[in-house]
Amino acid sequence: MLVKVEDARYWKNCVDAIESLIDEGTFNVSKEGIALKAMDPSGISMVSFFIPNKAFSKFEIEKPVGLGLNIDNMGKILSSARSNEQLEMKETDSRLQIEFMGTNSRRRYKLPLIDARKDADKEPKVQFEAVVELKCDAFREILRDANLLSSYIGFRADKNSFVVAAKGDAGELEEEYAGNADMIKRVEITKPSSATFNLDYLQRIMLACPSNSTVQLSLKTDEPLRLDYKIGEAAFAYFLAPYMES
Amino acid sequence: MLVKVEDARYWKNCVDAIESLIDEGTFNVSKEGIALKAMDPSGISMVSFFIPNKAFSKFEIEKPVGLGLNIDNMGKILSSARSNEQLEMKETDSRLQIEFMGTNSRRRYKLPLIDARKDADKEPKVQFEAVVELKCDAFREILRDANLLSSYIGFRADKNSFVVAAKGDAGELEEEYAGNADMIKRVEITKPSSATFNLDYLQRIMLACPSNSTVQLSLKTDEPLRLDYKIGEAAFAYFLAPYMES
Amino acid sequence: MLVKVEDARYWKNCVDAIESLIDEGTFNVSKEGIALKAMDPSGISMVSFFIPNKAFSKFEIEKPVGLGLNIDNMGKILSSARSNEQLEMKETDSRLQIEFMGTNSRRRYKLPLIDARKDADKEPKVQFEAVVELKCDAFREILRDANLLSSYIGFRADKNSFVVAAKGDAGELEEEYAGNADMIKRVEITKPSSATFNLDYLQRIMLACPSNSTVQLSLKTDEPLRLDYKIGEAAFAYFLAPYMES
Repeated sequence: MLVKVEDARYWKNCVDAIESLIDEGTFNVSKEGIALKAMDPSGISMVSFFIPNKAFSKFEIEKPVGLGLNIDNMGKILSSARSNEQLEMKETDSRLQIEFMGTNSRRRYKLPLIDARKDADKEPKVQFEAVVELKCDAFREILRDANLLSSYIGFRADKNSFVVAAKGDAGELEEEYAGNADMIKRVEITKPSSATFNLDYLQRIMLACPSNSTVQLSLKTDEPLRLDYKIGEAAFAYFLAPYMES
Repeated sequence: MLVKVEDARYWKNCVDAIESLIDEGTFNVSKEGIALKAMDPSGISMVSFFIPNKAFSKFEIEKPVGLGLNIDNMGKILSSARSNEQLEMKETDSRLQIEFMGTNSRRRYKLPLIDARKDADKEPKVQFEAVVELKCDAFREILRDANLLSSYIGFRADKNSFVVAAKGDAGELEEEYAGNADMIKRVEITKPSSATFNLDYLQRIMLACPSNSTVQLSLKTDEPLRLDYKIGEAAFAYFLAPYMES
Repeated sequence: MLVKVEDARYWKNCVDAIESLIDEGTFNVSKEGIALKAMDPSGISMVSFFIPNKAFSKFEIEKPVGLGLNIDNMGKILSSARSNEQLEMKETDSRLQIEFMGTNSRRRYKLPLIDARKDADKEPKVQFEAVVELKCDAFREILRDANLLSSYIGFRADKNSFVVAAKGDAGELEEEYAGNADMIKRVEITKPSSATFNLDYLQRIMLACPSNSTVQLSLKTDEPLRLDYKIGEAAFAYFLAPYMES
């Protein structure tokens, strides 16, 4: 297995979007591309990642292969990516070789392959009843607003508005966006839906979402949230369990 | 009571200048404007704040009202102010509602009203004998210089110069500015005056002073310092007890 | 003894390059200029510094003098240097007076003179067998790369390449630069040489190396490293003991 990316930083960004939630996982490399599904260590959230072969300038594979990796370590190594570097990954001696290629220089890292936990192959099956598509940056600001008061945030979507709420000792927040607000790209409602989620997880999920892109929230009352965004060709779907006040 | 500011960030800056010193206090809203006097929790320093009604685009009040608030929490909420947002504050159900208004969006916070400590209605009465007006940024640099060596700073003002001194295990500092130095805007001396103050308090007091504005120091030997600056129409007077070497 | 530098920040940069490694030392002032040799407190590394008299706009000295100083404290004080300030240093009452001179203002610090440790007058004598001259910034990036995986870094220089290696639990790094790589300015090899060094020390040594300048590494297998760079007229030679895996 040997794959090559023209811009090393692009692959770094993809792995960042996994690493913010996941400590270890298995990259499943097939003819179609590379996929990874994993839960965070606490089991509250899950990421489902897929990048098609066409995102790579070279994509050579004899048979499907699973590469179990410590994602933290992989992220560290990728943080050394410089501008104008290409990146090549290949399996060799039960290790993953990551090679950065600049002009007249090569930087080769080798990462041990591991038996990653296999706790999350199934995405939660929810018949979502509300979909809201928002600007990434605006959604990050909303999370920051709520975080001033609480560790949890409530979302409520109905035909005419998207409402965000948080409540703590210091006070309460209610934020209301009309369907035609600048930051709202699309609202599709089958049924008004509301649920509350852990802010820390949401903020980690959103860390790597590219500025100026959009994020799609799928909701059903008191069911897990599904959050989708893309980094170039790569698609990220996150699932987050609802928080139930006891 | 309902008041409105055209630029939410302006009100945020005003509250920052209080919050750097004060944890809780009562905003007294009258026809003339809003005033707050409060000591810091240690009782070493005091702020006296006044903003006239003309700084607001809406200023509706039936009878004078005192709004006791946790200033830390208010500051947190105001830190969410974005550019091009207006801000409306109104009392409702013994809470203060702070509403940020952007285009097509509203963000409403509610802060509980509290019985704030009432320990500081009286400003210290000192017949100051020296007044020095300085550039804000230059004064902040002076505080930083002194902080390299000590937790205290001495000021000495006489007809021809403004002298700053600090002393610690690592060495001594003496900084002398002629009356015509760039950073000195004005010196008025009845009698040469000198006193020593806690640097940490001075640095906190100066945190919110706008760059490119000026600050006025009023001194009398071994008496409290009075420090004045403005943020737009809002006037801030700080008082700080002198440090007496024992 | 009285010396004057036209740009206070230049002298600050020189002392930074000493302070990153050394806590105290003696500046030996002679007709030729100012020299300092000192080991770091752990005894693993050494700096040898010399700045010629021509780097100063005034250089007055009656007889050679040794100024023992706490370099940390001196560095703190110099960190207050502003742009467009001159700096004058003179010995007075067994203290070193450092005076910053701006327009219409003077800032005078006095630092106590101390009996600094005298543990390092001799530079290690090594017949180096490989010399590699690199761009400063590129070398700092290499150190950062290795630091992702390990606290140690191995260098190997031979006729055709300069190789860097690091190894840790998270993986391995091998970085290879051809002699004609952009970042390599010069390679002179008598004999292929390799040795391993402590990364923390190397990073501290490189902290003050000016961007866009070059650094020269002198190597001999398993012997101390010599690292040279200049800040303007000032020359810095650092020696660092090799790390021997046990």
